[in-house]
Amino acid sequence: MNDLPQIGFDFAFKGNPLERQSEHRGDAAWFEAHRRSDVARFLLMCEGRPVIDVADGRLDILHARPLGDDLAMVVDDSVLLGFREPDASPVFAVPLARSVEDIEAAYANLKCIDTRSLAVQGVLPPGYLGLLAQASALLHWHATHRFCSRCGAPSAMTQGGYRRDCPSCGGLHFPRTDPVAIMLVTDGDRCLMGRPPRLPEGVFSTLAGFIEPGETIEEAVRREVMEEAGVHVGAVSYRASQPWPFPASLMIGCEGRAESTEIRMDETELEACRWFTRDETLAMLEERHPEGLKIPPPLSIAHWLIRSWVEAD
Amino acid sequence: MNDLPQIGFDFAFKGNPLERQSEHRGDAAWFEAHRRSDVARFLLMCEGRPVIDVADGRLDILHARPLGDDLAMVVDDSVLLGFREPDASPVFAVPLARSVEDIEAAYANLKCIDTRSLAVQGVLPPGYLGLLAQASALLHWHATHRFCSRCGAPSAMTQGGYRRDCPSCGGLHFPRTDPVAIMLVTDGDRCLMGRPPRLPEGVFSTLAGFIEPGETIEEAVRREVMEEAGVHVGAVSYRASQPWPFPASLMIGCEGRAESTEIRMDETELEACRWFTRDETLAMLEERHPEGLKIPPPLSIAHWLIRSWVEAD
Ligand SMILES: [Zn+2]
Ligand SMILES: [Zn+2]
Repeated sequence: MNDLPQIGFDFAFKGNPLERQSEHRGDAAWFEAHRRSDVARFLLMCEGRPVIDVADGRLDILHARPLGDDLAMVVDDSVLLGFREPDASPVFAVPLARSVEDIEAAYANLKCIDTRSLAVQGVLPPGYLGLLAQASALLHWHATHRFCSRCGAPSAMTQGGYRRDCPSCGGLHFPRTDPVAIMLVTDGDRCLMGRPPRLPEGVFSTLAGFIEPGETIEEAVRREVMEEAGVHVGAVSYRASQPWPFPASLMIGCEGRAESTEIRMDETELEACRWFTRDETLAMLEERHPEGLKIPPPLSIAHWLIRSWVEAD
Repeated sequence: MNDLPQIGFDFAFKGNPLERQSEHRGDAAWFEAHRRSDVARFLLMCEGRPVIDVADGRLDILHARPLGDDLAMVVDDSVLLGFREPDASPVFAVPLARSVEDIEAAYANLKCIDTRSLAVQGVLPPGYLGLLAQASALLHWHATHRFCSRCGAPSAMTQGGYRRDCPSCGGLHFPRTDPVAIMLVTDGDRCLMGRPPRLPEGVFSTLAGFIEPGETIEEAVRREVMEEAGVHVGAVSYRASQPWPFPASLMIGCEGRAESTEIRMDETELEACRWFTRDETLAMLEERHPEGLKIPPPLSIAHWLIRSWVEAD
């Protein structure tokens, strides 16, 4: 019983360093006291992007109240992310009423950079990406759930940002996280990868799809691979999971063993799908494939599912 | 790389036998042709409960169209569950406009029994519970999402029941599945179990909680155990997953190794929480504990997480 399958998995968005203290969220006075605290820090989100202070080579995404006020933060939409060490200062995510263009024009030291680019570039301190994943998912949920899905009336944020309540029908709504099965299918010394059209040219990746109501993770793995590639999968092993804030997925990474090898590709989902030998996959990983084929960057759990299989004895 | 950790896990709601053919759902003509097909079968849901034909000792939950028509099925709210062997007949879930009381009074051979009771009693053929989980989750989602959460306008079911579209703002909405971390925490020869007030008297179970935005499964396990019991968890292993249609959770079962043993219980969540030796847990499993303490029934993944630990060498 151990974490062994995950050793070396170093993808983005895990390792959020905050202590959430979710057990206190229902206490509105507690929440308000922390929001007014002098040590409170604010992750200011503008059009879905964090405001970053790039002065003096720093990349700071947590700001004190005065900058938030200058940038027209919407205080009533503050979401409590948690508390950070060493001083237990509360950290909030807040949307801004100003535009990216306006902010970047007014402040030479401020940039608004999208979360995916920050993850690809790997420039933020460890853990900050996890915090950004949390903030992005929550603020996106609030922005797209201002109305009650039961009755259509406007709802109101409660519980420090972890619930919306409908004053009209009494409905309670919680942030959503969509579980996705993502899997490397193997057949001995070969693995199965596909190319959805959205990937950059030459990149092949693991198959993936949303887990549907009434499925186990393992059943979702087998269904997705059958639908996308026509390949039967037998044994399935869980490997690792990754929050994926585009907008709010939980990637559940697995390895599946093929029980058939003939591919019948779903042409609406994929533009190519084939078996790759371990040697060919290693060449893709090391960016020396003769046809220029590649795997996704280390940002993604797909990279690590492929890499850990290639590098296994 | 194998399924070993799951061998012997025989909980409810897994093993849905239908082929979903999700790749065709966008084709409205295809959907309509199957809905009108003579071999179509209907899972008729009344106030959230399936209508069961109990004549001649059978327990049939899939009915032909004439019974659906008699029971006032709301055809426009039909959701396609998938296709069943051996004749590839399409199976739909449909809500009814009549009440349970009315139906049971009018038909001596029909009973409406809630899904949890059916699972506890274990009376349905294998796989039917998985199908019920899928139907319950989807119909509950439609019933609570008739309005667009972005703009408050009424939305319409599309994609065979796997999407709702808003004609007013263009928003697309998908069924939700809420991932839950459920974990047996162990400290050598002891395991940690708690008693939320909702459990039957004397029953102790694994701790559990919803996975939040921006968390990995492993991070959620550690946070939940810290919040509910004040115990530090180190290594976490995935064991199995279970669809849990109350209303639409995906239970992700893990084992976590304790790195501290002192318990600080959250009294708002639990009314008791303590360590149990393997012998004591075995006595609970075998229903011979001197104080009458028990673990949950085999219906739940909690039972199997506890049982597989107790019975391990
Ligand atoms: Zn409402
Ligand atoms: Zn809308």
